Formats: sequence, C-alpha cells, structure tokens
Amino acid sequence: MNVTARTILLVEDNEDDVFFMEQAKGRAGIQNPMQVAHNGQEAIDYLQGAGKYTDRSQFPLPFLILLDLKLPLVMGLDVLKWIRERPEFETVLVVVLTSSREDRDIDTAYRIGANSYLVKPPTAQKLTELVKCLGDYWIRQNEPPVHIGEAVH
Amino acid sequence: MNVTARTILLVEDNEDDVFFMEQAKGRAGIQNPMQVAHNGQEAIDYLQGAGKYTDRSQFPLPFLILLDLKLPLVMGLDVLKWIRERPEFETVLVVVLTSSREDRDIDTAYRIGANSYLVKPPTAQKLTELVKCLGDYWIRQNEPPVHIGEAVH
Repeated sequence: MNVTARTILLVEDNEDDVFFMEQAKGRAGIQNPMQVAHNGQEAIDYLQGAGKYTDRSQFPLPFLILLDLKLPLVMGLDVLKWIRERPEFETVLVVVLTSSREDRDIDTAYRIGANSYLVKPPTAQKLTELVKCLGDYWIRQNEPPVHIGEAVH
Repeated sequence: MNVTARTILLVEDNEDDVFFMEQAKGRAGIQNPMQVAHNGQEAIDYLQGAGKYTDRSQFPLPFLILLDLKLPLVMGLDVLKWIRERPEFETVLVVVLTSSREDRDIDTAYRIGANSYLVKPPTAQKLTELVKCLGDYWIRQNEPPVHIGEAVH
C-alpha cells in the first residue's frame, strides 16, 4: 500500500491545536489523511469501530496515532494502555504529542508502550518543523507495523 | 544533560556497515558519541557493564540503541527481548536497523518492544539521509526516556 494513503489518527481535544496541526501537516507536505478524535473515548470508539465510526471506508484504521495526554473522558495514558492490551493494536505506532514534559508522564508513556514522546513546541513554525521531521521519519523512513492501517477492515 | 553528549550504541557485526554508519553519522552532523558492539553477546555485556565494559565513564549507558537483527552469538531479536525484560532498560530507545524487510521480523520486533524499525538503504547517500532523519527525530525532537544514558552509573 502507498504509504501516503495510510491514515493518521490525531487524538486532541483542543480545537486550536487541531487547527495548528492541520496547518503544520499541510506546510510539511504530508499528504496522508488525518482523522481527529476529540477525547479519549472517541479515540477508543474510533479504533474499535463503534458508534459513528463503524464505516471503515470512511474511518480507516490508522497506522500512526498522535496522542495527547490531557484529554476529557479517558486520559491519554489510559487510551495507550487500552491500545496495548489489545493484540490487534499491539504494534500500531503511537507517538505521544503533549504539552507535558513531566518525568512521570514520559516514563509511564514509554513503559506502557509509546513508540515516541514529543512535546508540543511553543510556536507554529516550530510545530511545522516538528511535523515535517515526524512525517519524514515515520512515513518515509520507518518500516510500519505489518497489516495495520493498510486496508479497509 | 546536553542531548549531544548522550551515547548511541550501534549493534552491528558487519565492519563495512559500521564504517558506513560512522561516515553517515559524521556527514549528518550528529555529534553524539557512538559505541559499537560487534555481536549480540557484546551488546548484552555492554549494557550490563560486564567484561571489558565495566568502566561506565568509558562505556556510558546509551539512550539510543541501533540494533541489527542478523548477529553472531545472540540474534538481535533475542537482544531486544533481553533488554525489555529488564526494568532498568524497559524504556531505552531501541531502533532496529537491518537488511531484513520480512514481515515476521518487523512484526516480532514491534511486539517485543522496538520503538522503530528501519531497513538499511542500498547506497551511502541514502544511508546519510536516513541517519540525518534519525538524528533529527530521536536526538533533536523526541523526549528521551527519563534518566537513561544521562550520567555515569
């Protein structure tokens, strides 16, 4: 499958941050479709195809999840725990993208199984740089997990 | 700690590949010191400070391990399993860097706990691009695990 056709799932409750991420993604030249879950429960619903997310042609499983930590309903680290407890999502790429630089969050995220931990930068320009680097690495260089986010399930 | 002072551990038995990696690292402008383990057993000895690796001022714990899979004595996936079974190395960054693009290797590496999986590119120029991207991402953007590869232990 063409890597640029694979879906990214952004889990982010802050509408401003969603806007900045979409803008940065465009500026960074990333063509992959990006879906947004606005809280932890929506992320879980999306992944299990529940509620409004039953149609996988419209809401494909992502190969890469960008996960905020401070989320309504279900916190990011609990979403990550939920993901890693399920064999079908054990290998999906999860990159934490948060404002927290607290040691406890970083340590817990890696222990639960985050692939990587990024801190949201303070400016739109720095965010574009980060998103470009993130795209270069995870989309162009990294070999993605097998059969995740590849096709309509 | 200054991120450029953190040590990278390259686990690679092929001397040509070690040479190309060192060359690519220089061309990519990565200043971090890079230690080399030439087989899986050497990687384990290095991490546990055994044999010739007892002096941590000379052989500091790495924050990032670049791990080949096809290795003498102990195979890469067994080194990764050994790493993840130890609480002190549970969060160390492990990036597989191998010639294998086999589904089984990719899937097993992620399941055992590789942070990322890279396939060795076919030319020195592409390797330099990959190493530059890898450095930009893991050294400049990613928030490293807490207290790993930070100081002399």
